[in-house]
Amino acid sequence: MPKSLVNQKWLYTQRPSGEVGPEHYRLVEEDLAEHLAENEVLVANRYISVDPYMRIQQSESESWEAPHPLNQLQQAGVVGQVIASSNKHFATGDWVAAYTGWEKFSRVHANDLEKLDPEKAPVTTALGVLGMPGRTAWFGLMEAGRLQPGDTVVVSGAAGAVGSLVAQFAQRAGCKVIAFAGSPEKCRWLEESLKVDQAIDYTAFNDYQALHHFLKTQGVSVDIYFDNVGGMISDAVIPLINRRARIIICGQMSQYNGKLDEVEMGPRFLHHMLYQRATIQGILARDYAHRMDEMMAKVAPWVKDGSIIFEEAIEEGFNRLPNHLASLFSRTTRGKLIVKIEE
Amino acid sequence: MPKSLVNQKWLYTQRPSGEVGPEHYRLVEEDLAEHLAENEVLVANRYISVDPYMRIQQSESESWEAPHPLNQLQQAGVVGQVIASSNKHFATGDWVAAYTGWEKFSRVHANDLEKLDPEKAPVTTALGVLGMPGRTAWFGLMEAGRLQPGDTVVVSGAAGAVGSLVAQFAQRAGCKVIAFAGSPEKCRWLEESLKVDQAIDYTAFNDYQALHHFLKTQGVSVDIYFDNVGGMISDAVIPLINRRARIIICGQMSQYNGKLDEVEMGPRFLHHMLYQRATIQGILARDYAHRMDEMMAKVAPWVKDGSIIFEEAIEEGFNRLPNHLASLFSRTTRGKLIVKIEE
Repeated sequence: MPKSLVNQKWLYTQRPSGEVGPEHYRLVEEDLAEHLAENEVLVANRYISVDPYMRIQQSESESWEAPHPLNQLQQAGVVGQVIASSNKHFATGDWVAAYTGWEKFSRVHANDLEKLDPEKAPVTTALGVLGMPGRTAWFGLMEAGRLQPGDTVVVSGAAGAVGSLVAQFAQRAGCKVIAFAGSPEKCRWLEESLKVDQAIDYTAFNDYQALHHFLKTQGVSVDIYFDNVGGMISDAVIPLINRRARIIICGQMSQYNGKLDEVEMGPRFLHHMLYQRATIQGILARDYAHRMDEMMAKVAPWVKDGSIIFEEAIEEGFNRLPNHLASLFSRTTRGKLIVKIEE
Repeated sequence: MPKSLVNQKWLYTQRPSGEVGPEHYRLVEEDLAEHLAENEVLVANRYISVDPYMRIQQSESESWEAPHPLNQLQQAGVVGQVIASSNKHFATGDWVAAYTGWEKFSRVHANDLEKLDPEKAPVTTALGVLGMPGRTAWFGLMEAGRLQPGDTVVVSGAAGAVGSLVAQFAQRAGCKVIAFAGSPEKCRWLEESLKVDQAIDYTAFNDYQALHHFLKTQGVSVDIYFDNVGGMISDAVIPLINRRARIIICGQMSQYNGKLDEVEMGPRFLHHMLYQRATIQGILARDYAHRMDEMMAKVAPWVKDGSIIFEEAIEEGFNRLPNHLASLFSRTTRGKLIVKIEE
């Protein structure tokens, strides 16, 4: 193990009441202990994940777990290289993925590391198409969604890490895809690169009624609504569900900047569930972690042969990690946001 | 067939914008044709069903089907006796159930009649515990609800036709039952007669926040929420769901008097579905009609041996059918409302 290694880590220090930014974080330095415990591995992080769910954990309310503790390392998925190891399965230079946090180096028990093979797929895919976002899209559609060829699949946040994969998985299964995104540029990308049947910039509509009216005049009816956003998109889409529609909730990004604590009002819609005998199901990627082999068997070959587009926005700037998190909510990011750490 | 029989029927003539009442109906007389077609059966209706779902069909919006047509017989379940038949399986005097309407006599094709055995169960049960409401409760809990012993089951509209059965089916399966109703009298009945674990009069709370706070201080957490009411009860209950909770929507009575057409606002809650990986499913009794044998095998013996309470509010007054429908929304009715026709 290298001596006198100084770690840098981002501590989450203050709950945002609205938008998250640098003022809610503090960058600190820390000497790393010199000796590894048995089966401990020291990882130099190369790629750090920045994900919308992080903002959920900053709510003062419970989510799937207690709120992210203050003055602690911001938890995150990372991809890095082993620089020291006291476990025989990991050697210096190995690429690995782990769930540690926004820090330059991580000490991890070997059991909590996943070894990556850079020959099989770019290592960054472990944070995207072959990681948490991919798993969310895959099992959300296949399990909760019970996808059938010919279904009309409506997806919100379609230019994002999860949504862009939902759109493509659905297309490959023979579905019609209607994709929502938050800018004309994203919609152009969805139609030109992802070749979705229709991309809709919801920010072009004043309210959910206008959007609903537009969808209705277009004859949109929905078998699967894969929702990562909520808010006005859901308000407009849910009344258009078909008999036995499946609504999958993998996120509610429209609510994260404050509305999880101060509840937002929206139109009641549960009567539509009754009329159509429809289902809403909330899903988290972690619940399918034990079934990654199933997904890898299908999706890894598509990554290898280039038949799936997995956009990665790889940004420089460990020192600007909180700004990168904020950027997820500013409607500019496309695909999976990853921050690269310079060696 | 008796000659010169005069039928009386209630035509639904005008869409209510709020509460439904006699002004939305017209009672007409009509001579019945003298001759029955082949396989046609003439039924003298004895018991007529009055159900909350009728108000849904009066909305100008589509529900599970197009809105109830104007100036047509109000559709309804009925129980009656055969007074003439041109089908060999039905003889004068037989008790039958059918879906016809608010009328004194119905001409029905034999295929659309269900023969009842008064020895096995009171014939009125075909409109309640052994009919549509019972089926909703049974399959809602067992199928959509995936009921497990030890579950905490929260039921709204618990003194109603469906809710009172949900409470008892859940208790029999070894569940804890928390029952919502709209008056102190109903709550007393729920605790004293149905022996639910806790009955809560939601009308005693000013808003959903107060109700939510009360439930939280009581330590309520929810595995199954069986909802026939919606509105402030759902607002208070849904944030208290447990991991993998099942929410069953069999109605939304709080919305029927106008809010299906002029949408009511309520707090957004879909993020809770995500956190808890929970499910919402809308159900209609008709989707389980082909599986009545399964339910009858279980529930009919309980009706026979008196071990289940199936409260029937049997009212006189064919001439006041619209008022009886209105009474469903005035918080006084308990159990299954049935109107008896005098012979």
